[in-house]
Amino acid sequence: MADFESVLKGYRELVAKIRSYQEAVGLIYWDMRTGLPKKGVESRSQVVGVLSGEMFKLTVSDEMGGYLDTLEKPEHAEKLDAISRKMISESRKEYDRSKKIPPERYQEYVVLTSQAESAWEEAKENSDWATFQPYLERIVAFNQEFIELWGYEGSKYNTLLDMYEPGMTEEKLDRLFGALRSKLVPLVEAIVHAEHKPDTSFLQQTFPKEQQKAFSLFILKEMGYDFDAGRLDETVHPFATGLNPGDVRVTTRYLPEDVVSALFGTIHEGGHALYEQNIMKELEGTNLCSGTSMGIHESQSRFWENMVGRSKAFWSRYYPDLQRIFNGQFDGVAAEDFYRAINEVKPSLIRIEADELTYNLHIMIRYEIEKALFNGTVKVADLPEVWNAKYKEYLGIVPPNAGEGVLQDVHWSGGSFGYFPSYALGNMYAAQIRHTLLKKLPEAEALIAKGNLLPIKAWLANEIYQYGMLHTPGEIVTRVTGEELSPDYLVDYLTEKYKEIYKL
Amino acid sequence: MADFESVLKGYRELVAKIRSYQEAVGLIYWDMRTGLPKKGVESRSQVVGVLSGEMFKLTVSDEMGGYLDTLEKPEHAEKLDAISRKMISESRKEYDRSKKIPPERYQEYVVLTSQAESAWEEAKENSDWATFQPYLERIVAFNQEFIELWGYEGSKYNTLLDMYEPGMTEEKLDRLFGALRSKLVPLVEAIVHAEHKPDTSFLQQTFPKEQQKAFSLFILKEMGYDFDAGRLDETVHPFATGLNPGDVRVTTRYLPEDVVSALFGTIHEGGHALYEQNIMKELEGTNLCSGTSMGIHESQSRFWENMVGRSKAFWSRYYPDLQRIFNGQFDGVAAEDFYRAINEVKPSLIRIEADELTYNLHIMIRYEIEKALFNGTVKVADLPEVWNAKYKEYLGIVPPNAGEGVLQDVHWSGGSFGYFPSYALGNMYAAQIRHTLLKKLPEAEALIAKGNLLPIKAWLANEIYQYGMLHTPGEIVTRVTGEELSPDYLVDYLTEKYKEIYKL
Repeated sequence: MADFESVLKGYRELVAKIRSYQEAVGLIYWDMRTGLPKKGVESRSQVVGVLSGEMFKLTVSDEMGGYLDTLEKPEHAEKLDAISRKMISESRKEYDRSKKIPPERYQEYVVLTSQAESAWEEAKENSDWATFQPYLERIVAFNQEFIELWGYEGSKYNTLLDMYEPGMTEEKLDRLFGALRSKLVPLVEAIVHAEHKPDTSFLQQTFPKEQQKAFSLFILKEMGYDFDAGRLDETVHPFATGLNPGDVRVTTRYLPEDVVSALFGTIHEGGHALYEQNIMKELEGTNLCSGTSMGIHESQSRFWENMVGRSKAFWSRYYPDLQRIFNGQFDGVAAEDFYRAINEVKPSLIRIEADELTYNLHIMIRYEIEKALFNGTVKVADLPEVWNAKYKEYLGIVPPNAGEGVLQDVHWSGGSFGYFPSYALGNMYAAQIRHTLLKKLPEAEALIAKGNLLPIKAWLANEIYQYGMLHTPGEIVTRVTGEELSPDYLVDYLTEKYKEIYKL
Repeated sequence: MADFESVLKGYRELVAKIRSYQEAVGLIYWDMRTGLPKKGVESRSQVVGVLSGEMFKLTVSDEMGGYLDTLEKPEHAEKLDAISRKMISESRKEYDRSKKIPPERYQEYVVLTSQAESAWEEAKENSDWATFQPYLERIVAFNQEFIELWGYEGSKYNTLLDMYEPGMTEEKLDRLFGALRSKLVPLVEAIVHAEHKPDTSFLQQTFPKEQQKAFSLFILKEMGYDFDAGRLDETVHPFATGLNPGDVRVTTRYLPEDVVSALFGTIHEGGHALYEQNIMKELEGTNLCSGTSMGIHESQSRFWENMVGRSKAFWSRYYPDLQRIFNGQFDGVAAEDFYRAINEVKPSLIRIEADELTYNLHIMIRYEIEKALFNGTVKVADLPEVWNAKYKEYLGIVPPNAGEGVLQDVHWSGGSFGYFPSYALGNMYAAQIRHTLLKKLPEAEALIAKGNLLPIKAWLANEIYQYGMLHTPGEIVTRVTGEELSPDYLVDYLTEKYKEIYKL
């Protein structure tokens, strides 16, 4: 039998190898979304298939199984360093999850979701729920089947939640979202009826792409994004991707009629990128070298986008730069008016266009629906009706058709159930972390107002970013803020901010 | 025993898989040279190592060996289509070549050449031959050892030549280069002493990058380069790369002080790209899906760069576009004067900066030296002296130091012996193919003068590009031109062109 040291070494080499495949596939995806010539797509998709297939084989290989069995033996527990221990538990999770699904069933599911994504695209375009419904029914059935194989605690939906936010449960979310909802719905109502509304007319201009780009680059630099470890490119649906901590790429989209889109889109993706760029050296080449969960990742993009980028302090410093770069287009508009305009609250139908406040309600609607679907209290066939009823209840508006309603998001067509809650969790994490930041670094607002964002980035890097996946989301929030996740900080932050803006 | 059909299917799937790895590695290299953030290099190099390693394993796998053994059985010969037959012979060549070298010796060699490339870079910078000499001695010794293992016919150097130009031998090259030399050396001498020299002073200006880029894009489009199957990016050392026929990327470099560099560099790489973009559908995913040899590839880049791009007909059509795009910078310069300036002949020390005519002499010098090295008539230690003597003899000038002399090229530090002749072979192939083109398509010059380059591209695609590696270089030249490669066409072409320019 091989000795412990050489098994550990072999295991870590195998993980590094899988990670290399992942990095290659990540680069291919980045390229696909930023400039792959269209005639090259077919062959490149086959390359992705080959590399992903090999990666999957390595993940569930007998070699991996053997390493895990040996390294998990009680007699070795003491000898493992913290990083290796966590690596092993993550590998085990992935190994078991993949092994429990019969390969041919999984293959069928992959084919189904890939067909469903195309079907969804067309159905959305035509607001045609009926053609998409059978796909979604099969996808939900597959997920029910997989949950039975994976097992679950408490409720079936918990197993799905745990994939995106380890440790998160329906019970916790009910409590968090319930509290949030009871405070935010009245706040939105008060805003809808407020007299003092922001003027947004000056945002209705055409803004040259070159200037939008210049401002995006400028702000990324200010945030401490390292251009020696990343780059900014254009795409249709913006994203950030951490190929390794030395190569974390941001993408954005410049809409000539909508200066706000690229501006906050870039800051948002920049927030994701700061997380990935600042993961500690020791985690490179391991399976812990990325943000710890969707929720914590989203907390960082949203912290930078909304709590820094949409703050008064930020624009007290950067508004003159904006005015200068867009030579004259904001002349005669006061910084205060700009600040109010970019924080306009307006109940609307489309999640991705929603403001910072109502966004949370869009998420809660999806959460309620997913939960009901997997607990069997709602059928796929009922979704359009349920969707519209919830929009009426939460936001006071009803979609005129399925395209702007139940068909608007891509997630379900790809089988991503349990993902949506991360967005609202991100807002809650962000507000709670912000609360601690303001206690530990009381000059934070003043620093923002001076354009000195680096100490804030350094604090976040030190408290969160460097650890990658070494700690769970629950551990992170407790370590950093001293308590479990609470909805109160987000409620307080939003109430204070919007009462001031709307003079309530 | 598996039946023939399923063995063939399995074999072709394995080849397609290797090809997918190659495409992934190709994309990574493209990215490394066009925009990889510097802090991402270390991890990305490991990714290349992992993927290349897997690719190599597949190439020499027992699976591959088994397929080849079965498919090569005489009883199957009749059943194989032409493509599969050629695929098998290429796989066999690669399999045998790789299998004959003990893995640990090959590994040592890879490490050596990677160290030698760094050592060369520094040695060149400091014109310090002494520090590089021991590396080169070891590299040559390794190649001698490998040649013994691979075997050789006629001379040892032939084995190296065959790697870049299948079927090429020292005997043939001696004849080709001998004839070329006897005609070109006197021509160069006549030019050096000619009274009527081109005025190049108007090229000494600063040309904005944006305009150079606009002209590069314009000319690529004119050549029939398909932007739906490619893209143009910037790099330090320009190259073209065919990832698959639907994704063939061109790179260039815009020097503000040298408008000619990007202009002809782009056309040159565009010529390589046309080859790769027009390979027939049936070869996609096979090991025949690229140009058939370095020499034939180079013939296409040089045909487009020199025989089209540096022709009088070309500038009679495109010079007004150049004048327009570089608003006013060429005002008062006649098309004829521009044509003469871009065809200036001047014996110089640096190969990559040489003109169309003297370039061939730079290559012959390297050929003579490589041949002597591998036939044992010259030692590595003697190279600086031999180099300088040859430059004196062929070009009438002597390098002031090793950096501008024997150390100028990267090739030898990477172990690429036998590669240099391809460049001059490319010129000969190009001239011979051009001769046939002018017979088959007598209106070719007139088409160029009208800016209708597409029929020329179509002819080349039909005669050469579509076949990828299906035919050998020798087969290609005989099929297209009806005879074996001859130096006469290049001699005639150059003599005619330069006698006119220099009024000899």
